[in-house]
Amino acid sequence: MDYKTDIEIAQENQMLPIFQVAEAAGIPEHYLEPYGRYKAKVDLSLLDSLADKPDGKLILVTAISPTPAGEGKTTTSVGLADAMHRIGKKVLLCLREPSLGPVFGIKGGAAGGGYAQVVPMEDINLHFTGDMHAIGAANNLLAAMLDNHIFQGNELQIDVRRITWKRCVDMNDRQLRVITDGLGGRVNGVPREDGFDITVASEIMAILCLSSSLADLKARLGRIVVGYTREDRPVTAGDLKAQGAMAALLKDALKPNLVQTLEHTPSFVHGGPFANIAHGCNSITATKTALKLADYVVTEAGFGADLGAEKFLDIKCRFGGLTPAAAVLVATVRALKHHGGVSKEHLGEENLPALKKGLPNLLHHLENLTNRYRLPVVVAINRFPQDTEAELALIREECAKLGASVALSEVWAKGSEGGVELAEAVLDAIDEKENRFSPLYGDDLSLKEKVETVACQVYGADGVDFTPAAAKELSRLETLGFGRFPVCMAKTQYSFSDDPAKLGWPKGFRITVRGAKVSAGAGFVVVLTGDIMTMPGLPKVPAAQSIDVDDTGKIIGLF
Amino acid sequence: MDYKTDIEIAQENQMLPIFQVAEAAGIPEHYLEPYGRYKAKVDLSLLDSLADKPDGKLILVTAISPTPAGEGKTTTSVGLADAMHRIGKKVLLCLREPSLGPVFGIKGGAAGGGYAQVVPMEDINLHFTGDMHAIGAANNLLAAMLDNHIFQGNELQIDVRRITWKRCVDMNDRQLRVITDGLGGRVNGVPREDGFDITVASEIMAILCLSSSLADLKARLGRIVVGYTREDRPVTAGDLKAQGAMAALLKDALKPNLVQTLEHTPSFVHGGPFANIAHGCNSITATKTALKLADYVVTEAGFGADLGAEKFLDIKCRFGGLTPAAAVLVATVRALKHHGGVSKEHLGEENLPALKKGLPNLLHHLENLTNRYRLPVVVAINRFPQDTEAELALIREECAKLGASVALSEVWAKGSEGGVELAEAVLDAIDEKENRFSPLYGDDLSLKEKVETVACQVYGADGVDFTPAAAKELSRLETLGFGRFPVCMAKTQYSFSDDPAKLGWPKGFRITVRGAKVSAGAGFVVVLTGDIMTMPGLPKVPAAQSIDVDDTGKIIGLF
Repeated sequence: MDYKTDIEIAQENQMLPIFQVAEAAGIPEHYLEPYGRYKAKVDLSLLDSLADKPDGKLILVTAISPTPAGEGKTTTSVGLADAMHRIGKKVLLCLREPSLGPVFGIKGGAAGGGYAQVVPMEDINLHFTGDMHAIGAANNLLAAMLDNHIFQGNELQIDVRRITWKRCVDMNDRQLRVITDGLGGRVNGVPREDGFDITVASEIMAILCLSSSLADLKARLGRIVVGYTREDRPVTAGDLKAQGAMAALLKDALKPNLVQTLEHTPSFVHGGPFANIAHGCNSITATKTALKLADYVVTEAGFGADLGAEKFLDIKCRFGGLTPAAAVLVATVRALKHHGGVSKEHLGEENLPALKKGLPNLLHHLENLTNRYRLPVVVAINRFPQDTEAELALIREECAKLGASVALSEVWAKGSEGGVELAEAVLDAIDEKENRFSPLYGDDLSLKEKVETVACQVYGADGVDFTPAAAKELSRLETLGFGRFPVCMAKTQYSFSDDPAKLGWPKGFRITVRGAKVSAGAGFVVVLTGDIMTMPGLPKVPAAQSIDVDDTGKIIGLF
Repeated sequence: MDYKTDIEIAQENQMLPIFQVAEAAGIPEHYLEPYGRYKAKVDLSLLDSLADKPDGKLILVTAISPTPAGEGKTTTSVGLADAMHRIGKKVLLCLREPSLGPVFGIKGGAAGGGYAQVVPMEDINLHFTGDMHAIGAANNLLAAMLDNHIFQGNELQIDVRRITWKRCVDMNDRQLRVITDGLGGRVNGVPREDGFDITVASEIMAILCLSSSLADLKARLGRIVVGYTREDRPVTAGDLKAQGAMAALLKDALKPNLVQTLEHTPSFVHGGPFANIAHGCNSITATKTALKLADYVVTEAGFGADLGAEKFLDIKCRFGGLTPAAAVLVATVRALKHHGGVSKEHLGEENLPALKKGLPNLLHHLENLTNRYRLPVVVAINRFPQDTEAELALIREECAKLGASVALSEVWAKGSEGGVELAEAVLDAIDEKENRFSPLYGDDLSLKEKVETVACQVYGADGVDFTPAAAKELSRLETLGFGRFPVCMAKTQYSFSDDPAKLGWPKGFRITVRGAKVSAGAGFVVVLTGDIMTMPGLPKVPAAQSIDVDDTGKIIGLF
């Protein structure tokens, strides 16, 4: 059977003019700033104008620990929103916006897939409304002002060996990971070690996503710690008087981007921080605006539930004052068999023992969401044609033991029609199941205790080992006044443990914390459990080699 | 007297919705892609649809050699277009778009001044429609693919010591001028010397501005030379299979941006290459589209006429098949006195001997435009309140000897009303004066002969000295097949000579050529007469420290 590619499906689709999408979503035209005919930014004053309206119900889509087999979290989110739309619910979808790096690297597009996509997918995957570029410019303005300050006499006495602020570029470019700059003599800066991150890893992306208003954004920007003096005093963006110009660069980027799904469900695609060194969810401004406009808001979080959902619940919900109504835990039979030890080429074959071995990965995520976060949960099986009835029955049976319902999703192949079962299961769960959500830990715990709580309860670790350097840094950050911040765990997404090879539901492991770093503007302490890649590289044959545009301006070769 | 700042004047202005501006310009709505309410991109198919329409008349605004006193070339361009609009002519303005670097550095905005501005000035000076970001992304994608190719085995045998392609960032950041990258061990690239340029200095900006269509753009991108092999073979972007993805990133950036002046004159603000290592004019797509829409098109070129007008006439007009109808040569009494040796604090005092001493700068530019390029020329004196009648009379008298009319312009203070005298002088010149324009030299001259022609005829040099390295490089570039390209002179803008201290009309000097570099995609050979800055730095107190945004999103402190 010949499948159409995502971009072919997207380009055949007839989009509605964005003003119609906005009208259907209840957004009056004067709040809209069109970017072309099918994208618009929504002014933040809309949120103020709706302050008295009750919030809709927030549905978090998360997943099992990711595998090379793919889970389809974004696709399921799109399809679930379309299915709710189809059965007459007032729904809005909130997704993260993709980075250019992976588009030109190996991953391809990030706007859903098959018949469950947000469109215009080419625009969303390329420059979209320029948010990434604005973040990159603000990031690099701060870096230029920092090095210029040092060059012009270094009045703040910044220690050039302890600068924590890096430049960024929205590209997979390993060549820039470690550099020396300021070379070339007296007029060309001050030599020092340096490096670039990919733009989505910039703290500014995290700040943009956690800010509730332009004033809040500016205050957070001013609090960014860019490095330390020789006397160990933190130097902030505010000390460099950079926050005003940075906020000026970001004022439009802070506004949610409105687009639509293939089935015209209104969608905000806004903000996309890394899910390791940042919190991995779309913006609070988009989510809050959506909750005022719709009865149901479907959103997603990065990576598996141990990272994405944990941060969504412990960071985003904490800062935004949000209470989710339910969680959807996405898995595929193929991915569960991979967790059970099956290699990629055999994933299409029925294998109940392997499924049984891999299933605990799903069950432990499920247990966390149900028992630790006390949320109603529906397990969504993103169905592939090769999945057998016996395999599906086994999953249902095991999930039922934990009180969770299982729904099949076929939105990739069928669009909204393939998501009705899931939509109804989610609506039932919201209506019928108990919801006593609260974040996992309070602000008062020490940073170490917060790490231990997440590691032992969510990951299932036996304990946490802090290297001497990490312990010292955590204690130093508490002394500097960052002790009440939540922790943002940077851990491999492939395992509950800090060893990517330990699939399924590993037991009897400890987590090793090797370092920590404050994101003072975002408002969390990043805790590092290993080498975390903040600048990806391109593969031998980058996707960019196949991407092209024809003479009429139509993009081709983007998957 | 208390003057309003440019941004205050701009923000008090009531703009027309961009659809109305487009309608007045004769652009049907379906060619328009709105970016917010007051900016739009115009589809290139509009140009195709108007192919049979005769072109309007193209008026080039250029200036004397720039001084710290300021000449007001952009302001005069805006005011001239507004004045033509006021007296009932169908007119379109074509300007370059500003770079973020100078906005946050020392220069401030670049959208005209006083009552002669293009608006929305904050947007134009910040992200505008994202063209700079698209150019930066395409530039850096090529760099990442280049270094990735080397990292993955270097099949093309690129010599890492002879890479000519640099990364770029749209920021004044001296720290990035000279770097080493690819450090940090085996997985992090291949160590080499490298550096960043500011985005407007990227060859991609020049290519964007010289391309006539998307197909032409892609072909030019493919021809970019990124470096050489050990066997001296040029390696191109096409060899790296990068041109398709680069063109995909640039497809919207190639479309002209429509805005308006304070007086609602339709304006394209599109493309802004450096005027030293590139050609310093707005895009050919914008100029050609404007010529189909309007009877008169006012445009400008960077720096003084020796660089900006020379490149406009010898590069842009050559590639675009354009014939200007007239040139306007902008000067101020203050700047001419500066050329006559008066220091900045005394420029407000009448000083006829100094004016007489500085005036030859104007006269030599005038002579070049009149006698070498054989264009009708009007001298525009951008009038300041301190200018005396005796000073103005002296200028008129000397210009009259060369057959040129002089018009006073007061558009900064009075808007279009202050430009009527100039507009009428320009219309008279077009109607009455002889126009036998052709570029200065033919394609057949050798590269050295082209340099000598420009240096001796336009600069008034006695001759050109080529360093051995430069002579060798020019001959090598001819061997490689680039001998028919025009030359793009990189020379100080402050003097006709290559010594910035030689003001006025220096005599008895020679030009020293120290290097050359091919911009094979743009289609010219850059000839270097000294150190040319392609990455500016920030001053001790950067403008960024005063730029801010209030809680409602209004930008403040941008000048």
